[in-house]
Amino acid sequence: MIDLRSDTLTRPTPDMRRAMAEAEVGDDVFGEDPTVRALEEETAALLGREAALYVPSGHMANQLGLYVSTRSGEEVWAHENHHLIGDEQGAAVVLSRVLPRLYPGDPFPSQELLDTWISGLGDVHRADPALLWLENTFSGRVVPLTEQRRVTDFAHSHGLKAHLDGARLWNAAAHLEVSPAAVAAGFDTVSVCFSKGLGAPVGSALAGDTDTIRRARRGRKLLGAGMRQAGIIAAGALHALRHHRERIVEDHERAARLAGLLADLPGLSVRARTNMVLIRTPEGRAAEYLEAFAAQGVRALGGGSRVRLVLRLEITDSDVEDAAKAITRAAAEL
Amino acid sequence: MIDLRSDTLTRPTPDMRRAMAEAEVGDDVFGEDPTVRALEEETAALLGREAALYVPSGHMANQLGLYVSTRSGEEVWAHENHHLIGDEQGAAVVLSRVLPRLYPGDPFPSQELLDTWISGLGDVHRADPALLWLENTFSGRVVPLTEQRRVTDFAHSHGLKAHLDGARLWNAAAHLEVSPAAVAAGFDTVSVCFSKGLGAPVGSALAGDTDTIRRARRGRKLLGAGMRQAGIIAAGALHALRHHRERIVEDHERAARLAGLLADLPGLSVRARTNMVLIRTPEGRAAEYLEAFAAQGVRALGGGSRVRLVLRLEITDSDVEDAAKAITRAAAEL
Amino acid sequence: MIDLRSDTLTRPTPDMRRAMAEAEVGDDVFGEDPTVRALEEETAALLGREAALYVPSGHMANQLGLYVSTRSGEEVWAHENHHLIGDEQGAAVVLSRVLPRLYPGDPFPSQELLDTWISGLGDVHRADPALLWLENTFSGRVVPLTEQRRVTDFAHSHGLKAHLDGARLWNAAAHLEVSPAAVAAGFDTVSVCFSKGLGAPVGSALAGDTDTIRRARRGRKLLGAGMRQAGIIAAGALHALRHHRERIVEDHERAARLAGLLADLPGLSVRARTNMVLIRTPEGRAAEYLEAFAAQGVRALGGGSRVRLVLRLEITDSDVEDAAKAITRAAAEL
Amino acid sequence: MIDLRSDTLTRPTPDMRRAMAEAEVGDDVFGEDPTVRALEEETAALLGREAALYVPSGHMANQLGLYVSTRSGEEVWAHENHHLIGDEQGAAVVLSRVLPRLYPGDPFPSQELLDTWISGLGDVHRADPALLWLENTFSGRVVPLTEQRRVTDFAHSHGLKAHLDGARLWNAAAHLEVSPAAVAAGFDTVSVCFSKGLGAPVGSALAGDTDTIRRARRGRKLLGAGMRQAGIIAAGALHALRHHRERIVEDHERAARLAGLLADLPGLSVRARTNMVLIRTPEGRAAEYLEAFAAQGVRALGGGSRVRLVLRLEITDSDVEDAAKAITRAAAEL
Repeated sequence: MIDLRSDTLTRPTPDMRRAMAEAEVGDDVFGEDPTVRALEEETAALLGREAALYVPSGHMANQLGLYVSTRSGEEVWAHENHHLIGDEQGAAVVLSRVLPRLYPGDPFPSQELLDTWISGLGDVHRADPALLWLENTFSGRVVPLTEQRRVTDFAHSHGLKAHLDGARLWNAAAHLEVSPAAVAAGFDTVSVCFSKGLGAPVGSALAGDTDTIRRARRGRKLLGAGMRQAGIIAAGALHALRHHRERIVEDHERAARLAGLLADLPGLSVRARTNMVLIRTPEGRAAEYLEAFAAQGVRALGGGSRVRLVLRLEITDSDVEDAAKAITRAAAEL
Repeated sequence: MIDLRSDTLTRPTPDMRRAMAEAEVGDDVFGEDPTVRALEEETAALLGREAALYVPSGHMANQLGLYVSTRSGEEVWAHENHHLIGDEQGAAVVLSRVLPRLYPGDPFPSQELLDTWISGLGDVHRADPALLWLENTFSGRVVPLTEQRRVTDFAHSHGLKAHLDGARLWNAAAHLEVSPAAVAAGFDTVSVCFSKGLGAPVGSALAGDTDTIRRARRGRKLLGAGMRQAGIIAAGALHALRHHRERIVEDHERAARLAGLLADLPGLSVRARTNMVLIRTPEGRAAEYLEAFAAQGVRALGGGSRVRLVLRLEITDSDVEDAAKAITRAAAEL
Repeated sequence: MIDLRSDTLTRPTPDMRRAMAEAEVGDDVFGEDPTVRALEEETAALLGREAALYVPSGHMANQLGLYVSTRSGEEVWAHENHHLIGDEQGAAVVLSRVLPRLYPGDPFPSQELLDTWISGLGDVHRADPALLWLENTFSGRVVPLTEQRRVTDFAHSHGLKAHLDGARLWNAAAHLEVSPAAVAAGFDTVSVCFSKGLGAPVGSALAGDTDTIRRARRGRKLLGAGMRQAGIIAAGALHALRHHRERIVEDHERAARLAGLLADLPGLSVRARTNMVLIRTPEGRAAEYLEAFAAQGVRALGGGSRVRLVLRLEITDSDVEDAAKAITRAAAEL
Repeated sequence: MIDLRSDTLTRPTPDMRRAMAEAEVGDDVFGEDPTVRALEEETAALLGREAALYVPSGHMANQLGLYVSTRSGEEVWAHENHHLIGDEQGAAVVLSRVLPRLYPGDPFPSQELLDTWISGLGDVHRADPALLWLENTFSGRVVPLTEQRRVTDFAHSHGLKAHLDGARLWNAAAHLEVSPAAVAAGFDTVSVCFSKGLGAPVGSALAGDTDTIRRARRGRKLLGAGMRQAGIIAAGALHALRHHRERIVEDHERAARLAGLLADLPGLSVRARTNMVLIRTPEGRAAEYLEAFAAQGVRALGGGSRVRLVLRLEITDSDVEDAAKAITRAAAEL
């Protein structure tokens, strides 16, 4: 079985396991874990920020970004498919009590939409906006840095903050052949994941200026995510950051290769986006295709008319060949 | 330097590191991490509960216990020194929006207090009570099971739930020479820690009935504490649960031994409580004593007129002897 | 100037002012205001409910309905244009921390949509649903009682509660020629307004069973809306309830009359709905038309391509004639 | 029966009823009610502030003051008997999610306490403080303006805001023979009540700078306390503000007279404080005394060992004589 459901499935490599087993640790709630400190410092430096905070998940990094930059009752502007709202048990409304204002379509708001939304703020029925949210990559798609820049400039010129959900920022940087700091530029807060493309077992970070991260650290304590000898898992993340960033382009190449092998399947529209292969099935038949793929030995996720295949550290060239054959067999039968 | 500040400082043993390095893992957000599952099942069984949930900290286990058993605006009844309120960035009011009603003194509420508080609920100014909170051990002190039983019976007969902060439940069970399930009996939810006395680097659990834990699992997702290949750290916790519970009495014996060695120090009142040694200094001089102890090579925590020394897995018999000598030297100079 | 912006603009009649001036009052926070009590009892009886609670606004009645029937982090299912979410400073997320799940189109959810939403609840990413929300009338449109019944039956068979925003329930009852209780049937909580169609200066009510209203009363206290000698304004509401319900059909007749007079205006599509006249303008030109109407002496509200005219107690037959002429003149110039 | 339970019981005078019956009104949600506007402007001017907001209760004015000056998870410093926390259904934790830090004793914090609390803020367990809370008068007791000044200066020099619960600020000003603005000086936000000593049936106000009140106005909308033709009740408040402020000293004189008449009752300690008479009964016997007073025709409130009698607009000199006789008879029998 070749499991292409998500890059979150990646298990630690032998070297990473060794790094974790040998990690130097301390009590991080007392600020005494040297491995966590090193991870936070290297992450901040890579993202061009003053400080960073290690947290158990990308979701928490995002929610803390939201928490430190908003007040209850303010609006956050985001895409309707950002994880922020629908996918996380209502975290944004429970933890930060913000009101989402959502747009469909492109993975960034048009200037016309921003101009419309910023007008009419005088009305007593309307909440004040506080934060603009972007995600890069977004379902594998790279948001152009010029669009990011337009949006963050707009935010700052109207007194809003800007946050980047960078769970797959490493993929965006690899694709654009720029530094992580270049992708993170212009945002007040940025989240990144050490799992997913980098392949660490646990952990993400929120980066920002010193005072913002100080408040996020208190927020992490509030959420109960201060971990004692967290250096064990931070060592895995640090190993991933140092050794797995370069290789992420291999996932992109394999995604392109896999999409190429599937290009001519009847009834399916296939395209590669960074480390993902996105398949559009005939109307509403994604579930059927997922089942057929699984019967042939390939696991994937999807719904409606969309199927997603994700490349990652454990998936090899020969897995790609085998997956393409399996999917071709499956598609032939449908 | 002998560090007696807290049992949270314990670093993993070589065997525990090996267990973590070799842990079988999967994506726990998909429910596919076998080590996490095993840990949750063994914990639930030990506590006599249907289910348990692995979380990054005892604080989170407690806050989830609070979240699943209360509604916004309800009261939780607790001791003024329970961690619930003052020590955790206001988590109880931010996450669960509950109103604390606090009592001083003994580590459990008197029957007279409970009777007073439960009367007068008809008043429109008064919030409805939802949850009674106990902690065992509480600052090292064991709460008698008969008192626990009285309190949980009272709670249930008036429609309240009862939660046990069992961060050091293992110490209570060892002291009373009963099973963990016996200490956990009568509560709707129970938290336990795998760090502290058990010595694992990261992690705690909340135990309860199946539906409660299902809702707590969603709460954990909401907080952003769903961790991917959490089996790495869960393996440390599982190792601790299987191999370090029995030895916890050694910490109690060493605490008693240390208290005995310090019994005659001038101006200090010293008593052992499970794995802690509590020292009462002359009025308001705790900070002075802490400094003097540190100058002699012993780190401790305290404030006002109280100093706390905590025994734990890494502290040996000879550490106890050395600590006693150092403290005696320090006290002689003050 | 004929002001057709909203039925909330209605000022008290001389009889109503007299009723308020002579109202028997007491301290309602102590439960001692006889006029408030009478209003609550008569409202509950009219709606076929055990109890009702007087509050300052329909928004508060709705928010209390939400507060008493949900827990933080649960979903409420509503129409995207219900006031619940976008129009009230994010009240639903701040006060009740619920996650809205919204549908577009018809003023009630289709059975297909309900079936889709209720499936897939097992997923750990999805919040639990708690409440189904309807509004009747909704932008002047009457929701058929058979649709209401289908939706409330669905809610109850899946463990959800159902709430009716009945700000203009009186109009729905008048239009359907049924009792208010018939429109309120099947819902756990129902809000009604004494302003708007009934013409009282201040006030609304939430109705439900005794325990729900007891909790709503505490919620009202929490919000700071316990008013002392509220009988003054409750007297206006009671007068409206007793004397202005019957006459509400006159507003519907005048709306029909006004729509009839405007039926042939070039470029405009006009229809009457209960006490409202809804005009569809050429694409995006509502603002232009509003300005032209005002220049001719008629005030209205609208945006995009929609203009709304609202009939109410102070608008007479001759106002209708004059408004029709003014609008016709304005339309001729555009 | 002479009812001395509270000054909130005061019913409107004939002149006040006439003012309400004749009030010029509009839709205040649209900002079109001239009476509400006049009330807000006169209140702001009296308190030396840029702006004020009319709300249904002193509780709401206070909660809005809290809401606009804090963020979730911050601390508010207050007296343990301030209404803020225990008396209002947990409003502060539900609406603003702030963590109360409370002091006992004097109605203002000592400098030593402030210095202790402001130190140790670096600790990750401690929440950030945001607001200092005072109340004047506090249980009838006047807080000296020099103490107020010390506390507000401290707050501002450490980045905190300061709020004054001025439900009975008029009494403080009358007692000190200074202007309301003098009592309100130094605070970021100030609440006042038009009921209680001023005798209006409904309403309070929050005063502050323009931007703060703009945000409070949105908060009022959020709470659902935007009222339509609120001018009806605002007219009562405006009448009270213009005509009943001067006479408030009469309540103080009657309180002093009543305390004088009760000075020699055996077993009771009696003192007048502004418009209240506070009686200390033998240990724990307040309930007994309340019952005996009621049997003799005087209603009061109290609990434990304290009974409170409150003078107000409707209580005359002869009521004072009669009440003193009744209480004397009651005390003689106990």
